[in-house]
Amino acid sequence: MDDNKKLEQIESAFYPESIAVVGASADEHKFGTLFLHSLQAHFKGRIYPVNPNQTGVAGLQAYPSVEAIPHPVDYVIVATPRGSILDTVGDCVRKGVKAIHIFSAGFSESGEGGYQELEREMVSMAQEGGARIIGPNCLGLCCPTGNLPFGPEGIMPKSGKVAFVSQSGGIAVAFVLSGIAADIRFSKVAAFGNGSDLDGADFLEYLKADGETEIVGMYLEGAQDCRPLFKLIREVTPVKPVVVLKGGKSEAGNRGAFSHTGAIAGSKVVWEAALKQAHAIEVQGVEELTDTVLAFQQLGRLGAKGAVPMAGLLGAGGGMVVTSSDIFTREGIPLPVFSRETEEKLRKIIPQVGSILRNPLDVGAVGSRPEALAEAMEVLADDPETGIIVVIEMLDQLLLVHSMESVRAIHRVFAGFREKRSMPFAVVLYPALAEKERSEIVGGLSRAQIPVYPSLDRAARAIANVRRYWKFRDELEEGSGGARR
Amino acid sequence: MDDNKKLEQIESAFYPESIAVVGASADEHKFGTLFLHSLQAHFKGRIYPVNPNQTGVAGLQAYPSVEAIPHPVDYVIVATPRGSILDTVGDCVRKGVKAIHIFSAGFSESGEGGYQELEREMVSMAQEGGARIIGPNCLGLCCPTGNLPFGPEGIMPKSGKVAFVSQSGGIAVAFVLSGIAADIRFSKVAAFGNGSDLDGADFLEYLKADGETEIVGMYLEGAQDCRPLFKLIREVTPVKPVVVLKGGKSEAGNRGAFSHTGAIAGSKVVWEAALKQAHAIEVQGVEELTDTVLAFQQLGRLGAKGAVPMAGLLGAGGGMVVTSSDIFTREGIPLPVFSRETEEKLRKIIPQVGSILRNPLDVGAVGSRPEALAEAMEVLADDPETGIIVVIEMLDQLLLVHSMESVRAIHRVFAGFREKRSMPFAVVLYPALAEKERSEIVGGLSRAQIPVYPSLDRAARAIANVRRYWKFRDELEEGSGGARR
Repeated sequence: MDDNKKLEQIESAFYPESIAVVGASADEHKFGTLFLHSLQAHFKGRIYPVNPNQTGVAGLQAYPSVEAIPHPVDYVIVATPRGSILDTVGDCVRKGVKAIHIFSAGFSESGEGGYQELEREMVSMAQEGGARIIGPNCLGLCCPTGNLPFGPEGIMPKSGKVAFVSQSGGIAVAFVLSGIAADIRFSKVAAFGNGSDLDGADFLEYLKADGETEIVGMYLEGAQDCRPLFKLIREVTPVKPVVVLKGGKSEAGNRGAFSHTGAIAGSKVVWEAALKQAHAIEVQGVEELTDTVLAFQQLGRLGAKGAVPMAGLLGAGGGMVVTSSDIFTREGIPLPVFSRETEEKLRKIIPQVGSILRNPLDVGAVGSRPEALAEAMEVLADDPETGIIVVIEMLDQLLLVHSMESVRAIHRVFAGFREKRSMPFAVVLYPALAEKERSEIVGGLSRAQIPVYPSLDRAARAIANVRRYWKFRDELEEGSGGARR
Repeated sequence: MDDNKKLEQIESAFYPESIAVVGASADEHKFGTLFLHSLQAHFKGRIYPVNPNQTGVAGLQAYPSVEAIPHPVDYVIVATPRGSILDTVGDCVRKGVKAIHIFSAGFSESGEGGYQELEREMVSMAQEGGARIIGPNCLGLCCPTGNLPFGPEGIMPKSGKVAFVSQSGGIAVAFVLSGIAADIRFSKVAAFGNGSDLDGADFLEYLKADGETEIVGMYLEGAQDCRPLFKLIREVTPVKPVVVLKGGKSEAGNRGAFSHTGAIAGSKVVWEAALKQAHAIEVQGVEELTDTVLAFQQLGRLGAKGAVPMAGLLGAGGGMVVTSSDIFTREGIPLPVFSRETEEKLRKIIPQVGSILRNPLDVGAVGSRPEALAEAMEVLADDPETGIIVVIEMLDQLLLVHSMESVRAIHRVFAGFREKRSMPFAVVLYPALAEKERSEIVGGLSRAQIPVYPSLDRAARAIANVRRYWKFRDELEEGSGGARR
C-alpha cells in the first residue's frame, strides 16, 4: 500500500462522515454505549449502532452488522470482546470501511497463547481488504475540527495547533485533560494502543503534513522496529517541535510496557541518544510534557537571550530572587546583567529599600502601583538582552494585603503588556488557599495567551526545553556554521 | 551569654505574654498597623501600639515609647524606617524587653555605606542590654500554640509538629501557605532575615529540644561562619529529620543572596557535601520542600521495602503503570515482585483483561466495585515485601464515567484502609478540570491523614527523600555494622 493512500486513510479517519459503533447496547455501562453517547454529543455526521440483538439503541436505529447499514460507513469503533474480532473485521471489510478503531483489549499485550496470532490475522484481513486498524487496546482518535470526540468519555478539547500521539490511552487522557486545564488547544489526538497496523510513525507522518498541527507531543513505549519512527521524528523537527515522553525506560517499566501494549520498549540509552539526535525534546513525565507543550503554544519563538525573573509585587521577593537564580541557572537559562540604562530607569520607578534592582529583580511593593509596574515592565522589555520575562507571584500573599480589585489591576497590566509587546512572557503563580480567586486569575492570564505555571521549577524546565528547540532551529536556519544569536 | 539563657529567650519570644508594635498608626496600609491587626485577630495576651504622635490606634491606647508602657513587655515588633533603629532598640533595652523582631529593612543587605555598621551597633546595644534581635529585614516568628500569628498578613496555620526556619520571609510565607493548602500543621516558624543576632543555628538549637517539633524544614542562604549550623544539623538529624532548601547555590543566586539578606552564600559543593554528611535531606525548590515535609508528616516511618504503585480504577491504567515504573526506578525506590500468593489472590478479585496483575498494578475497572478494591488493597498490604502503596488517580476520567457518589465510595475505601492498616499510603491525584470535586476529595484524603500529590514525579521524589532519612535512622539504630531491613 503506498504512503499517499495511507495518509488519505488517516485523514478520513480524523474527518469521517459516518461512524458505526459495534457493541453499543441498551446497557448504559458498556463502553460501546458510552462511545455512542459521546458521538451523539459531539459528532455532526451519521451515527450507526451495530448490535444483532437490538433494533434500536439510544434513539437510533441499530443494525445487525456493519454490512447491513444501507449507507457508506467511513469509520467503525469496535467495543466487543476479543473473541469475535475476526467476524467484525470481516464485516467491516465487506462494507468497504476505511478505518477500524478497536477499543477491545486482550490481544498481543495479554501475553496469552494465541492472541498475538489473532492480532496478526486481524491486521492481515483488514489490510488485504483495504482497511486500516487503529489499536487494538486503545482509545482511538480525536479531532476537534472534525467534531470527533475523544474516548468513551467524550472529551472534546478546544481546537488549536497541538497534536498528541500516544501509545497509551490513559496517558493521552491525562495529557488532554491537564492540557485543557492549562488552556492547551488541540488539532488531533491519536491513542493507538498496540499499534498493530497504524502506529506512531504513521500518525507522525500524517501530522508532518497536517496544516492544523504546529506542535507535536508523543507518548511512546516502543515498537518492534523503531527506525521508521526515529527517521520521521528527524524529518518533522526542522519544521515542528516534537516533545516526547518515553515510557518503559526502566527495567520494570519495560516489563510493564509489554503487558500494556505488547511493545518492546528497547534500551534507555538507545532511545535517549536517538531522540537527541532527532532534535526531539524529551520530557520525563506528564507534568513536564504539559508544561513544555504549553510553553511552545504560548511563548512563540524564543531566542538565545536570557530570562528576567521578576518577584516581589508586595515585597518579600528576595527569597524568590535567590531561588529563581538557582533554578534558572540549573536549567541552563542565562540571566543577563541589566544595562546601566535599564538600572537607572528602574531606580526612578521603584524605591530602593525592600527591592533588588538587579536581575533577577525584586520589584518590592510595586504591586500597589500598577502604573509603576507597567512602566518597569516596559523598561525590562526595552533592555536588548531580555529574552523572556517571568513574573513570580504568590496570590495568597497578595490577597492578604490587597483587595481582589487591586490584584485584578495588577493582572490587567500583565495582559496589557502581553498584547502590546512581542516579548515572551510567563507567570508563575504558586498554589493558593484562595482557589477561586486563583482560578479567575489563571483563566484571565490564559485568555491573554500568557502561560501560567504553579512553580518556578516547572516554568524554568519548560522554558529551557523550548529554548533548546529554538536554538536548534536558529542554527539550522543560519546554516551549520552560523553564529548563534 | 550562655546557651540556656538564649534558649529561654527564644522560648519566651515564641510564647510572649505581651507584645508592643512600634510603628502602628492610623494609616491602615503601614506594615506596623497590619502587624497590630494581625495580633488583634489572633494573640491572646496584651498588645501595645507604640507611636509618639497618636494617643490611640485601632481601639487600643498608644504609647509614645516602649519604656512608657506601664506593664512588662516581652516581645517588640519594629516596623519603622531604619534611621531610628538605635533609638528604638535603646528604648526596648531600657524597658527590659527580651526579644525584638525588626521587620524594617535596609541594613547590611542594602550594600550601602554605613548600614552594615548600624546593624552591628544595634546588635551590640541589644545584647549588652540583655535583649535578643530577630532580623532585621524579616517576618519574625509564628507559633500556633502561643497564638502568635505570622507576619503582617496574620497567617495562622494549624498547630502540629512541623517547624520551619527561614532566612527569607517570602519563602517562609510561600512554604507556610502551600503547607496549609497541603494540610501541613506547624509547631513554630522563624523567618530571621539578616540573622544579625539570632540565626538559623540558634533556632535549630531551640527546635532540637522543642517537644512540639518532630520535623524541621529550613530555607538557608548562608552565613559568615556556617560551622555552628552544620554542627547543629548533625546533632538534630539523629532524632528529627531536617529538610533543607539552600538558596544562592548558583553564582547569580549567590549575588542575590547578598542583596537579599547580606549573606555569604558559600560554595555549592561545600554546602551539598556538608548537608549530606549531616544527614539533612536537601531539596531543590519550595515544591519539593512542601512535598517532602508532607510525606514526613503523613507517612510515618518508612522501611527499606519497596513501593506498589496502583493505577487503573477505571481501566486505562497501563500507561501510568509504565510511567510509574520509570519514575520510581529513577528515584531509586524498588518495586518488589509480588509473591505467587499475592498474584493468585489478586487474580481472584480482579478480572484479567484490561488489568495488569503485577507490580506496578493496573487494577482495571475495579473502581466500580469498591468492595473488590478494598479486598485488593488488603492483599497488597499483606504481601511481606510491600513498603508503601501509592494510588494513581485521574479524577476527570473517573467522573466522566462514575457519579460523584461512586467516586466518594472509592475514597471511603482509601480512608478506611488508612485507618485500619499501619501500611504507609499515598495518593497521586492529577490536576482536574473538576476543581471543586478535586478539592472535596483532597480535603477528605487529607483529613484521613493520607498525603496527596498532584503528580507521580512529585510523590516519588518525596517518598525517596523520606526513605533516605529512615534508612539513615535504621542504620544508626542498628549500629553502624547493622544489616538493613
